[in-house]
Amino acid sequence: MSQATIEHSFQAINPATGEILPGEFIETSLEQITDYGHRSAAAFAEYRNVSGLKKAEFLEQIALEIEALGDALLERAQAETALPLPRLTGERGRTTGQLRLFASYVREGSWVDARIDPALPERQPLPRPDLRQMLRPLGPVGIFGASNFPLAFSVAGGDTASALAAGCTVVVKAHPAHPGTSELVAEAIRTAVQKCNLPEDTFLCIQGRTNETGQALVNHPAIKAIGFTGSFRGGKAIFDAAARRPEPIPVYAEMGSTNPVFFLPQILKEQGAALALAYVASTTLGTGQFCTNPGLSIVTASEATEQFKAQAQQAITQVKPTSMLTKAIREAFHQGISHLTSHGDVQVLGESDATEGYALARPVLLTSTAKALLANPAVAEEVFGPSSIIVQADNPEEMLALAQSLEGHLTATVYGTEEELLQYGDLLAILEQKAGRVIINAFPTGVEVSHAMHHGGPFPATTDARSTSVGTNAIRRFARPVCYQGFPQALLPEELKDTNPLSIWRLWDGVTQK
Amino acid sequence: MSQATIEHSFQAINPATGEILPGEFIETSLEQITDYGHRSAAAFAEYRNVSGLKKAEFLEQIALEIEALGDALLERAQAETALPLPRLTGERGRTTGQLRLFASYVREGSWVDARIDPALPERQPLPRPDLRQMLRPLGPVGIFGASNFPLAFSVAGGDTASALAAGCTVVVKAHPAHPGTSELVAEAIRTAVQKCNLPEDTFLCIQGRTNETGQALVNHPAIKAIGFTGSFRGGKAIFDAAARRPEPIPVYAEMGSTNPVFFLPQILKEQGAALALAYVASTTLGTGQFCTNPGLSIVTASEATEQFKAQAQQAITQVKPTSMLTKAIREAFHQGISHLTSHGDVQVLGESDATEGYALARPVLLTSTAKALLANPAVAEEVFGPSSIIVQADNPEEMLALAQSLEGHLTATVYGTEEELLQYGDLLAILEQKAGRVIINAFPTGVEVSHAMHHGGPFPATTDARSTSVGTNAIRRFARPVCYQGFPQALLPEELKDTNPLSIWRLWDGVTQK
Repeated sequence: MSQATIEHSFQAINPATGEILPGEFIETSLEQITDYGHRSAAAFAEYRNVSGLKKAEFLEQIALEIEALGDALLERAQAETALPLPRLTGERGRTTGQLRLFASYVREGSWVDARIDPALPERQPLPRPDLRQMLRPLGPVGIFGASNFPLAFSVAGGDTASALAAGCTVVVKAHPAHPGTSELVAEAIRTAVQKCNLPEDTFLCIQGRTNETGQALVNHPAIKAIGFTGSFRGGKAIFDAAARRPEPIPVYAEMGSTNPVFFLPQILKEQGAALALAYVASTTLGTGQFCTNPGLSIVTASEATEQFKAQAQQAITQVKPTSMLTKAIREAFHQGISHLTSHGDVQVLGESDATEGYALARPVLLTSTAKALLANPAVAEEVFGPSSIIVQADNPEEMLALAQSLEGHLTATVYGTEEELLQYGDLLAILEQKAGRVIINAFPTGVEVSHAMHHGGPFPATTDARSTSVGTNAIRRFARPVCYQGFPQALLPEELKDTNPLSIWRLWDGVTQK
Repeated sequence: MSQATIEHSFQAINPATGEILPGEFIETSLEQITDYGHRSAAAFAEYRNVSGLKKAEFLEQIALEIEALGDALLERAQAETALPLPRLTGERGRTTGQLRLFASYVREGSWVDARIDPALPERQPLPRPDLRQMLRPLGPVGIFGASNFPLAFSVAGGDTASALAAGCTVVVKAHPAHPGTSELVAEAIRTAVQKCNLPEDTFLCIQGRTNETGQALVNHPAIKAIGFTGSFRGGKAIFDAAARRPEPIPVYAEMGSTNPVFFLPQILKEQGAALALAYVASTTLGTGQFCTNPGLSIVTASEATEQFKAQAQQAITQVKPTSMLTKAIREAFHQGISHLTSHGDVQVLGESDATEGYALARPVLLTSTAKALLANPAVAEEVFGPSSIIVQADNPEEMLALAQSLEGHLTATVYGTEEELLQYGDLLAILEQKAGRVIINAFPTGVEVSHAMHHGGPFPATTDARSTSVGTNAIRRFARPVCYQGFPQALLPEELKDTNPLSIWRLWDGVTQK
């Protein structure tokens, strides 16, 4: 092995033990990334015209190939992430499930939003030409695997599934914390590409630990959009780089949020004990490493609130510390908590036992006041990991003011009795402007993969409030409308022919019909 | 009048004569713009919940108020733009027509893309919550009036109509070349706001000639999206400023393009003479001041091509020079042509008579070769005005190479007989990746306002290839999906209630239905 190779290779670490895992991974060179971009563009020229039926078969084949990896995939993922096997088994089901959902979506075919305005040759003062429009794929897409979902938001995750479904070729940058898992899944996709006789470069995967590798992908002129899930710092850097390109491209960066949960007074009175337990469970679920853990809750002063806090305090002390995804993430978590509690306005309500494991995180609940948060938004800054801050308002007006002061979030939740929810219409109206998903009486963890899910939200939760990274609507991120004027039937895509051979829903002269 | 006021006031000039027109316009101060942004946000809190029915009435009332301005509007617009009265009459019809089209679109209501995934409480291993999604307005929108359409892409143009239809409040920056026209239309909208009992600040208008005025609007924290039609330089500056904001916002800048027209050999043989006339007419239509004038045509070497060029040469010499929108635009046009012809590779094929009127432009046809253009894209750079360049390829392969080298355009056209169009599938496939609208056998001028129109295209034609500034799809630019989870029926928007009281098309558990 040459010196150059050694310098640019890396290994995975088991965060549960600190052990170096077998397997050496080579950082993809900048020259290779340049080559990959061009190859992806060449493959796109063919793949963009693959039918919905054929794309559906391809997505389903990827799901089958992932399943065919069997326990080896789950074991490697567990070794690289310290996530429990049942969670990873569920995440694999989510991954293959969303591949199959996108397969069914493109097989059905109406997602292309076909619109046909037939010619009106006799119209006065000017005839109308024949106009037909549908969504067409944007081009090669660069996708960054996330650390916290080694399967469902990674190499064959929702970004890849939706981009391939749209007709885009994909170049994935694997997350360096789980390179082995990534390589297994990449090989599964390559096998599916071969079995479906698609262009070999429909899917390409790069490995790397450096920022330069990611930037090279973002800056490649052939890349026409970026999908990303991760930190604000990472996502914003990619957004800025993409906006500075000679040809700017859209960046769909989901950068997480604190997902505020508002507890209204009456429900705390009626169900405070159960809510305290559920709140702590949602906060610490998956070691607090979901984009949708509730990092902030808002209560108003009352006796019930005092009891709720006492119960939450008791619950958090009983949570068993679990490992984070990497030692660096764990250190950032503990530093973030230290930083927060150095504010005079933030107190520790309770925390679990201290622990010295390699990447074990110590779950913690903090408290502060609405006054402090209104004066200084940093009081409720997101700390990625198992923590949440309970912010107390003096009265409903202060709660509303706090809601109004929020930045963009993925989710916002209100817990209330049916009666008091009707009284808090103002709060719901404010939260609808702050979040991509507004939830009543449930914690935000648990993001259904379906048609009506929206996993996005105003900045800084994402860089594009119009987009979702979960659910079938995610496909729209990777497509743009094209209008065909005056085309003979023979030259039109199937979706736009008069006879509607695919039997999709279309807007025909303004009327929705099949 | 104070010194400060005098410094910041300006007047309109009649470009046909150079005369100063009556009326003094005050540059809106930066303090006022700050105030307007906040007032627009306050109005948005109410206007965002106005029903589709009520928004439809409002849009229709704006159309009525514009019509009620009568000839005074057309006369002022003619004086400020030198556009002929019949054109302005048509443009007024386009403006009121698109207001009424958006009215019918939001009255029908299905545009919100409602999606409902009902709860599955019995599902294993986890129940599914009730999830409902629809499009909701983004927030206050900043809109820049365009110089070349003083009505249809200006104060009450397509951007304003689609933003108001989406439920956004609007702050328009009037184009400084037609401040009087803008003020008349702004007053018409304000009257409609009053008659419809909407919040007074639903619509606000600012006047100004300086870049600072526009930048202040783009940088206002309350503004959540920008609509713009104009030059590449102007649009890109706004895009860059918006991307640098603490909270970046989407910019929908339509920046024009040269709209390549490919003439295939056989059709030139059969219809060359008629096509030459039509080409010159489309090039010089509206003094070449449409975003869709054909600024570039591509032919292959043949005897028919020589005849086509001779006929086009003859036609251009007979075009009567007409006035451009401003003297500055006219000077930029003549400078641009001088700059182009200073290339050794660009020749003048023909031009109309020289003229010395205040803002009269001299129509011109240029020629070059595919080889020259492939070596230097600046050979076919857009020059806003009545000019076009005929680029000759040696053979079909060179024509394809040229197509492949194109940047993004609003439109791309192919003229061919039915038989040869079938042979040139590769060309059409390339052009579909380069343009927002691909046209067969028609010139690109004439942009229908309808459901299937797409007036957009890949960068640098626009800053967002996913968006259109003409047609009903333009409404999507100003909306984002919001997901409502676990909402009681009473708290849901009408569009998402079980009973579907608005009778709109929805995706219910994956099935399109009413």
